[in-house]
Amino acid sequence: MFDTDEVIYAKENKIAFTAGLQKPESYATQQIIKFSRVITNVGGGLNASDGVFYCPEPGLYSFFVSIMTVANDAYAHIYKNDKFIMHVYTDQSGRKWKSGSNAVVLRLERGDRVYIKLPSSQHLHSAATYFTGLKI
Amino acid sequence: MFDTDEVIYAKENKIAFTAGLQKPESYATQQIIKFSRVITNVGGGLNASDGVFYCPEPGLYSFFVSIMTVANDAYAHIYKNDKFIMHVYTDQSGRKWKSGSNAVVLRLERGDRVYIKLPSSQHLHSAATYFTGLKI
Amino acid sequence: MFDTDEVIYAKENKIAFTAGLQKPESYATQQIIKFSRVITNVGGGLNASDGVFYCPEPGLYSFFVSIMTVANDAYAHIYKNDKFIMHVYTDQSGRKWKSGSNAVVLRLERGDRVYIKLPSSQHLHSAATYFTGLKI
Repeated sequence: MFDTDEVIYAKENKIAFTAGLQKPESYATQQIIKFSRVITNVGGGLNASDGVFYCPEPGLYSFFVSIMTVANDAYAHIYKNDKFIMHVYTDQSGRKWKSGSNAVVLRLERGDRVYIKLPSSQHLHSAATYFTGLKI
Repeated sequence: MFDTDEVIYAKENKIAFTAGLQKPESYATQQIIKFSRVITNVGGGLNASDGVFYCPEPGLYSFFVSIMTVANDAYAHIYKNDKFIMHVYTDQSGRKWKSGSNAVVLRLERGDRVYIKLPSSQHLHSAATYFTGLKI
Repeated sequence: MFDTDEVIYAKENKIAFTAGLQKPESYATQQIIKFSRVITNVGGGLNASDGVFYCPEPGLYSFFVSIMTVANDAYAHIYKNDKFIMHVYTDQSGRKWKSGSNAVVLRLERGDRVYIKLPSSQHLHSAATYFTGLKI
């Protein structure tokens, strides 16, 4: 048996996902954020267990990343393959919970990888740490 | 008479909206944010007066929510029907104006409702409190 | 010779961009943010050197703006032509680095201009100051 919706979306070539964390998670330096809570994953691009979006179809993609952390001066990095693309910055207001978000449109080839890496060890809150992407 | 643009967008099956507040508003606990300033509402999904997006066509939708509040540890909740989906978190920096945003892709059926609810009483600033959605 | 990808995207009528700053920049009051780092610019709508998106095709567009600044109570304004649309607000937490973001869907006619203006003099950090747009 198959999921009828998935068949329809595949015909329409739709690719879109949102994933987050089931519970707060601590990360060591240079780790990629993995996603234990998948809200949407149409087109199968996101591998939630390793945290990487593997581009299934060449095209233009829009990504949105939000993080919620407690570290002072906390941020995350969006990567395409092994290349740094941009920061997702929160603020420098000391050890308090805070959030930050950023977005980017990227041209991807099949197999390109997009993911979020933490440049320093951080404790991420599940309430507002999410990774979203969609094919334009 | 009709709005020619609306006819064209309807043919293309476009659905997209952005709405905010005309002026700062105070909300009691568990209230849904209503929108007194509609910037865009193509496809008629958003009912600004009750604050709810009623899905007019099944499909994949992307939503973006920003809030600007003055309460410490302030946040909002994105709901689909009666199910909590995610937080829109600002920060814990005390009683100062602050903003936060989040985004999500959801698969919706016709009639599904998406809206923003405040889990605690809050004073929202109109400068940066907005609800945006679009059919992918 | 031509860029094959550009030809394909032009056929598909895709328009999307993301641009930021190569390095931190100081701005005087009422200046438009210019972009020295273009990550994506398909469809040619963004003129990075003057910071303005000139709409190449009528339609619905989604924009996302993030700023990272150090001024207290810092924000930016999104404009359509000469009309103020909305704030991109950070927070009031004093002279510390902080970020803020906002998004909007706008109906544009050919030639309409969308850009980001700073209502006060500010020092923007390149790490998390970005302007993204796409045709829905």
